[in-house]
Amino acid sequence: MKRYLCVVQYIGKNYCGFQRQDNGISIQQKIEEALEVGLKQKIEIFASGRTDAGVNALAQTIHFDADISIPEKNIPFAINQFLPNDIKFLSAKVVNDNFNARFDVKKKTYVYHIYVSPVELPVKNELSYWLKKQPDLNKMKECAKIFEGEHNFKAFMSAGGQSKTFVRKIYSIKIKQKNDDISVEVTGNGFLYNMVRIIVGTLIEVGYGKKTVRDVQTALKSENRKNAGYLVPPYALFLKSVKY
Amino acid sequence: MKRYLCVVQYIGKNYCGFQRQDNGISIQQKIEEALEVGLKQKIEIFASGRTDAGVNALAQTIHFDADISIPEKNIPFAINQFLPNDIKFLSAKVVNDNFNARFDVKKKTYVYHIYVSPVELPVKNELSYWLKKQPDLNKMKECAKIFEGEHNFKAFMSAGGQSKTFVRKIYSIKIKQKNDDISVEVTGNGFLYNMVRIIVGTLIEVGYGKKTVRDVQTALKSENRKNAGYLVPPYALFLKSVKY
Repeated sequence: MKRYLCVVQYIGKNYCGFQRQDNGISIQQKIEEALEVGLKQKIEIFASGRTDAGVNALAQTIHFDADISIPEKNIPFAINQFLPNDIKFLSAKVVNDNFNARFDVKKKTYVYHIYVSPVELPVKNELSYWLKKQPDLNKMKECAKIFEGEHNFKAFMSAGGQSKTFVRKIYSIKIKQKNDDISVEVTGNGFLYNMVRIIVGTLIEVGYGKKTVRDVQTALKSENRKNAGYLVPPYALFLKSVKY
Repeated sequence: MKRYLCVVQYIGKNYCGFQRQDNGISIQQKIEEALEVGLKQKIEIFASGRTDAGVNALAQTIHFDADISIPEKNIPFAINQFLPNDIKFLSAKVVNDNFNARFDVKKKTYVYHIYVSPVELPVKNELSYWLKKQPDLNKMKECAKIFEGEHNFKAFMSAGGQSKTFVRKIYSIKIKQKNDDISVEVTGNGFLYNMVRIIVGTLIEVGYGKKTVRDVQTALKSENRKNAGYLVPPYALFLKSVKY
């Protein structure tokens, strides 16, 4: 019996989120079913954290314990044939028995994709969020600075979150634009329920002049959800990397 | 009553193809329904040509006749609100009454997207075709030259095509690679049923050394489908532009 750390990529659209739930098909369920068929043993997986319904992952990390005879580098091929097109293992390696994909996380990076176009573009619509008009990127960058560092982010959490502590540390928020594509990359030590998507919605409101940077500063201090910006949709959010 | 030429973008995955059919929902049906609601009149549209089930369009062209009071540049906004996320009007303009979106076509360009990766990547899987190993691009480019010019392409047509003539002219086939992404761009005066996808499948077989350039030359001359390469899937094919 060895412990494995695997990197998994998925598109969240067709699932109720990463974590198993009674009311829908989860990514966890699909992975555990594929592991059972591919490795001929019941396996429970532990992810770096759940991703919400509809959210994607470029590189989600999971660990599990298993007896596997094939070399670790062949595990993705053994499993992927039993996974749908929208969930695949990218890599697998043996780690220490006491490694934990969730509790050992040091940093996580999420990226949110936006495109600016007078008309909606179906080829971008699936994995990027449409904005009809160009927001003021400098204003957004100025506002992003407010979130960096350690703060109580209760104002930037949707109702229904299960966290009991609300202080998180954001290491950086990088906003970049290339042609009509904007990305907002948020790196932190952990995130509250919907936190990244509310931060992005707030930054967009600032970019459109609907909120000032000072409004956002006040919102953060208020610890009150109603003072923060709107929640942008999940399909444009990607868990980009998990650092241990 | 004026004639309008519109450019439409769509993802084909959820449809039975462009053209109305009894056994599924077509892109034509969705567009005609949206036009009826948005413009409050029954409108029949005529496209540059049908695209097959699952095939995408960056810029399909259609024409239709209608009485429309709003400025032509506002038509996309009036219609798009009644269209699903995966079909949208990009532009609309008034044209001569005798313009025909199908019969006046001079050139059409299709592009096929391929990605090369040891493991399948869900974020690319939806609109790009997975190859596990790098094919020989120079071989593919050499083979692509064979198709350029005027030829009888009967060997590169699937059974079920309705064309009565098989001679088509290919102006160019451009094969490019950037990092792990390969594109095959085919410009011609018209295409037979599945022709672009069979050409791409054939080029891939040449890139892997399963067919020689000479084999393909023989296949083209044979006018026999069984001598050409395999049919690559539709979801990675895009109608890129239609020139009049």
